[in-house]
Amino acid sequence: MLDAGLVAAVGIADEAGQPYVLPCAYARDGDRLLLHGSTGSRLFRRLAGGAPACVTVTLLDGLVLARSMFESSMHYRSVMVLGAGTAISGDAKEPALRRLSEHLMPGRWGDARPPSGKELAQTLVVGLPLTEWSVKVSDGPPEDDPADLDRPVWAGVIPFNTRLGEPVHAPGVDAGRPVPRYVASWAPRR
Amino acid sequence: MLDAGLVAAVGIADEAGQPYVLPCAYARDGDRLLLHGSTGSRLFRRLAGGAPACVTVTLLDGLVLARSMFESSMHYRSVMVLGAGTAISGDAKEPALRRLSEHLMPGRWGDARPPSGKELAQTLVVGLPLTEWSVKVSDGPPEDDPADLDRPVWAGVIPFNTRLGEPVHAPGVDAGRPVPRYVASWAPRR
Repeated sequence: MLDAGLVAAVGIADEAGQPYVLPCAYARDGDRLLLHGSTGSRLFRRLAGGAPACVTVTLLDGLVLARSMFESSMHYRSVMVLGAGTAISGDAKEPALRRLSEHLMPGRWGDARPPSGKELAQTLVVGLPLTEWSVKVSDGPPEDDPADLDRPVWAGVIPFNTRLGEPVHAPGVDAGRPVPRYVASWAPRR
Repeated sequence: MLDAGLVAAVGIADEAGQPYVLPCAYARDGDRLLLHGSTGSRLFRRLAGGAPACVTVTLLDGLVLARSMFESSMHYRSVMVLGAGTAISGDAKEPALRRLSEHLMPGRWGDARPPSGKELAQTLVVGLPLTEWSVKVSDGPPEDDPADLDRPVWAGVIPFNTRLGEPVHAPGVDAGRPVPRYVASWAPRR
């Protein structure tokens, strides 16, 4: 699931105990999660400083129409990771950013310009160990109460998938420049 | 944005200050958000009890490949709502659940069996006022540093959309029963 998602919902509380949930790109790197953000973000600095965090990745797979409203629901896969992050710094920073890039768009690193020293200094990279986590999966047909099975109503599932549009060239890109193979072949994972 | 999304990431902290992020179906109802969950969920009971909460809805619209890794990012729309929830009870509960249903699948309420008294008692419905919120939108072409514009590398955007699969009939549904019009015509909103 972690390898199939692109954006995580990162939960972190401020000094007063108010929780915040931030959408963040992420990657799994072995038995840790990698996240990156700006040194200008107060909440991201708290995350990098080891404040208790929760990182949840949810993949929405469909709508489930049961014969009763009560059993109607969604198909989803969700991972919740709890833990404390640590800042990744020094020589470990660029390989961690490369891993993030390789998760989001394999092949892109090395083609685009890598981060400069100044850009690296503006980027916080955080690792979160995959030690405490829980997983929820909802799939299969609606779980109707047996007493509802004879109701004269349609029931079933509407599946969701991600469809990619045609890549849009940025202004200034030579019209004759082909879309790179890693872009043309990129596909969402399941 | 709130009317376009289906699942929110709900952030709530436990007594010890550990934040949790839960995926939840939601609906906007005028100037409040509606959420529902099980009375068996400790975190949902905290939400209903008015603990400080953050509800974030994120719509992922694409991948942005800039000429530099630093400017590479994603297209997204995100709303973060902060506040304290209140439990919706008594005669207000069923209309709130109906509003949730009408957001997720307009037309379904009244066709499926409505919740029984026992099912209503097992369901927590929470309202969160839309008074404190912030919105972030990332769209448009990559925002490259002018110094990078001449690099011989493709840059652009890969747009994402949601594609619906064919509705899957639940076991036991009469094969001759047509898919209801509200199912056949359901489409993700933007």
